[in-house]
Amino acid sequence: MTQSVRQSIIFAKRPAGAITDDTFIVRSSTIPDPGPGEVLTRTLWLSIDPYMRGRLNEGATYTTGTPLGSVMTGETIGEVVASAHPNFAPGDIVAGAFGWETHILSGGDGLTRVPRDGAPLSTYLGVLGMPGTTAYSGMKDIGQPKPGETVVVSAACGPVGATAGQIARRAGARVIGIAGGPEKCRWVTETARFDACLNHRGDLDAQLDEACPDGVDVYFENVGGAVQAAILKRLNTHARVPVCGLVAQYDDPDPRPVLNLNLLLYKRARFEGFIVGDKPGRFAEWRTLAAPLVASGELRYCEEIVDGLDNAPAALRGQLTGRNFGKLLVKVADL
Amino acid sequence: MTQSVRQSIIFAKRPAGAITDDTFIVRSSTIPDPGPGEVLTRTLWLSIDPYMRGRLNEGATYTTGTPLGSVMTGETIGEVVASAHPNFAPGDIVAGAFGWETHILSGGDGLTRVPRDGAPLSTYLGVLGMPGTTAYSGMKDIGQPKPGETVVVSAACGPVGATAGQIARRAGARVIGIAGGPEKCRWVTETARFDACLNHRGDLDAQLDEACPDGVDVYFENVGGAVQAAILKRLNTHARVPVCGLVAQYDDPDPRPVLNLNLLLYKRARFEGFIVGDKPGRFAEWRTLAAPLVASGELRYCEEIVDGLDNAPAALRGQLTGRNFGKLLVKVADL
Repeated sequence: MTQSVRQSIIFAKRPAGAITDDTFIVRSSTIPDPGPGEVLTRTLWLSIDPYMRGRLNEGATYTTGTPLGSVMTGETIGEVVASAHPNFAPGDIVAGAFGWETHILSGGDGLTRVPRDGAPLSTYLGVLGMPGTTAYSGMKDIGQPKPGETVVVSAACGPVGATAGQIARRAGARVIGIAGGPEKCRWVTETARFDACLNHRGDLDAQLDEACPDGVDVYFENVGGAVQAAILKRLNTHARVPVCGLVAQYDDPDPRPVLNLNLLLYKRARFEGFIVGDKPGRFAEWRTLAAPLVASGELRYCEEIVDGLDNAPAALRGQLTGRNFGKLLVKVADL
Repeated sequence: MTQSVRQSIIFAKRPAGAITDDTFIVRSSTIPDPGPGEVLTRTLWLSIDPYMRGRLNEGATYTTGTPLGSVMTGETIGEVVASAHPNFAPGDIVAGAFGWETHILSGGDGLTRVPRDGAPLSTYLGVLGMPGTTAYSGMKDIGQPKPGETVVVSAACGPVGATAGQIARRAGARVIGIAGGPEKCRWVTETARFDACLNHRGDLDAQLDEACPDGVDVYFENVGGAVQAAILKRLNTHARVPVCGLVAQYDDPDPRPVLNLNLLLYKRARFEGFIVGDKPGRFAEWRTLAAPLVASGELRYCEEIVDGLDNAPAALRGQLTGRNFGKLLVKVADL
């Protein structure tokens, strides 16, 4: 399908708490032509990720936020349709972080070429992209799971959690997932092959008592909130807690629970926040390691696909309340 | 002075909050003779340290507590007076962790020989002993100060803090101490040569604004409480927080403040509790490194000496409310 106009989703109004209908607006404009050194891509896939909520806040979280009035931040996979850049030619498939638009004009910075006939293109936004690399970086640098240890992963059905758990399992750990509802839990144990998966909508304390009789050595933290509180009290001596996300509390102006440092001291535990963008070298490293495992089916992933760029805001809203199942993607156009 | 009886201080009653007059009692007994493989030492110095408060609690903190009815836990320097152990002879000076007693009978485990004519014997309980090694381990493994960074050290007049700050300064960092009162602050800047020292009894926020205009890269945490709250909000991206002690909140059954993990995530900060006993190799490493610096006067330390074993309980009580000045020692007997 060839479009004649470009559609862009603009960050229009800062949300006070949850995203509302007027947070974003759609803008139409003429598809631009690349100037010298520029490349024009046609967006195929847009990734929807929880960190996007932070970009809508006043003031910095990791980086400066998305400015009001500009195109919303986001990772995409696109096809080059016109190029005045020496490294890219029409027909190339590229991954990059350029925003919620049907057509993206860029100087090529941060674009990486992706094989047309390798793993499914969408996986370069999930298990082989930012979420998968995040899981790899958090486990390698902070979690450091050892054979026989107990590793708990929250949001275990999401692309970070599912990958983090499978990495820990390959390292010989016993891996317990946490997810919302029996359907997600079934995917986590049957497809992603975690040792167990607990439904946080049930009695999490009782389930943790049964699943983690020897305590928790690594907690890969994706959600915060009540799930965190239940797990922190079970940490073993020398526990490691990679703090990757706190999606349950991003909308909360005064987040709970919080960590009593006495626990951290007595357990000699390590808590560390991280973002994958701080170690750009991890991306290529992980892609090399993981692409064959995705191809062979050893590394499992799950995608939920929403059709059409217009639906991206609703998709993000749903994700922040845990409604999606697996890696959330917007299919913007067919290849 | 030769004593004819042994005096031992016994943990008699578990304190609910602060230590009281009936927490400890003094017991007199006959000085024992060493059996085969045993060594008898005459205690010269006893170290008083904040961690001792944790040993009086029900349940484990780092290790099991001191059992009710037994000799109180503590590090000592002693002179061997009788030995049926192949490695020790009368006249040897030894360091070890055996408790609050005038005479100690042991199997020699954990005893290390200390030179009679090197650094002052008392320094093997302070800057060259457990507190100094703790500072070294926390800075080396977690704090990792870099040239030009801002390092804040609480309890900067204590033996851990004073040593930690001097280690950071030797690594090229700008080092800000926090201590209680102008007299301690003067020692920290003039003798220990920190770049500045803030009095936590004054307006700490205003002082921090002035002393740390570029935020805080490393916070070496010894105290917890309100000092911690003031510093945490100034942490820079990639800040490191070695959590060594929380002396201001050991007596508090429901300690405040606590850490909001959003801060840790957005700052990609590392918080890690540690105790030096987990890395026993650090002791010899630090002693080798630091003994020449103590001898040459480059590494500064401060001691407060209390006379007589009977005064050990009062000394510990005073320390937990910040009353001591520098490394707190009980002089049990002359050499």
